[in-house]
Amino acid sequence: MNRDAIITSVQEQMPERRWIHTLGVMKTAVELADRFGADPAKADLAAILHDVAKYWPVDRMLRVIREEGLFLEVLEHDKELWHAHAGAYAAQRDYGVTDPEVLDAIRYHTSGRAAMTLLERIVWLADLIEPGRDFPGVDRIRELAGQSLEKALIAGFDTTIVFLLEKRKRIYPLTVLARNDLILEEAER
Amino acid sequence: MNRDAIITSVQEQMPERRWIHTLGVMKTAVELADRFGADPAKADLAAILHDVAKYWPVDRMLRVIREEGLFLEVLEHDKELWHAHAGAYAAQRDYGVTDPEVLDAIRYHTSGRAAMTLLERIVWLADLIEPGRDFPGVDRIRELAGQSLEKALIAGFDTTIVFLLEKRKRIYPLTVLARNDLILEEAER
Repeated sequence: MNRDAIITSVQEQMPERRWIHTLGVMKTAVELADRFGADPAKADLAAILHDVAKYWPVDRMLRVIREEGLFLEVLEHDKELWHAHAGAYAAQRDYGVTDPEVLDAIRYHTSGRAAMTLLERIVWLADLIEPGRDFPGVDRIRELAGQSLEKALIAGFDTTIVFLLEKRKRIYPLTVLARNDLILEEAER
Repeated sequence: MNRDAIITSVQEQMPERRWIHTLGVMKTAVELADRFGADPAKADLAAILHDVAKYWPVDRMLRVIREEGLFLEVLEHDKELWHAHAGAYAAQRDYGVTDPEVLDAIRYHTSGRAAMTLLERIVWLADLIEPGRDFPGVDRIRELAGQSLEKALIAGFDTTIVFLLEKRKRIYPLTVLARNDLILEEAER
């Protein structure tokens, strides 16, 4: 499926405000890819598809995660994490994406994971700081992203973890492993 | 070894301020055990010994953790976590403690872990809120401990995690699993 056809199909599956968010993630992901030496076309494709499953019914997400059989433990955690795994499945099955880098950037765009690839980092961060995002501290993370991808990611994961603490929600272990790895990288730099 | 002999030996291995802290943990752990239905004698023994290895040279902690061979992954994390594992080893080898509940309460008194036992919860919390502790929010955790052991633990883990975020330190995965379990318990209550 070509880029325009994917865009048309993705746009049809979400409300307008989520499509505007997706456009923001596309723009920011391509900028970050240019800045930090990733492939902008891959960043663009992952950004287009990252939220494709966001509005799927829960039982559809459940079915494909079970069918994929890889990350069943995500089912024991917040449903907010499910759409990323379902989205990677849809990208592969429905949109013919075969590049594992792109699929993983979709799959880990909410949780992160240990040893994130460059593309995963870019899509994760773009999702957090695209122009439509507005939460306390987002401007500081945008500033950091002008200097260091890793420093911006650490600040982003910190914000995510504090948000979960305040909401009395569980913290997905991969999210902590993602941040731990970045802290270690920064310390060894 | 009887209680008095253990106390004399433990006291000799630490500076006075750490012994005063240990006395505080003993007092608080026994109070919490009485309040929440744990065995006060076990709480007392675990509290006496919890920091026995705190001032061991790093290479001695390293040696016994390797010798024990159980929690080698703790060696990849902050040294602050090591003394708890070394302490459990010392309690068993040097002080003849055989009760696995007491040994685990010593072993997990810094990190916590998933599915903490009642005694582990009590010793973990006593270590955090004994009368000598003074950090922002400690009085709120003490108040919570008057009502609910689990609510006090969640607040304590939140404080610990925020402290690690602010210090740009890695978060030990077991600490997150400990809090996640407590959140789930509270939600299911």
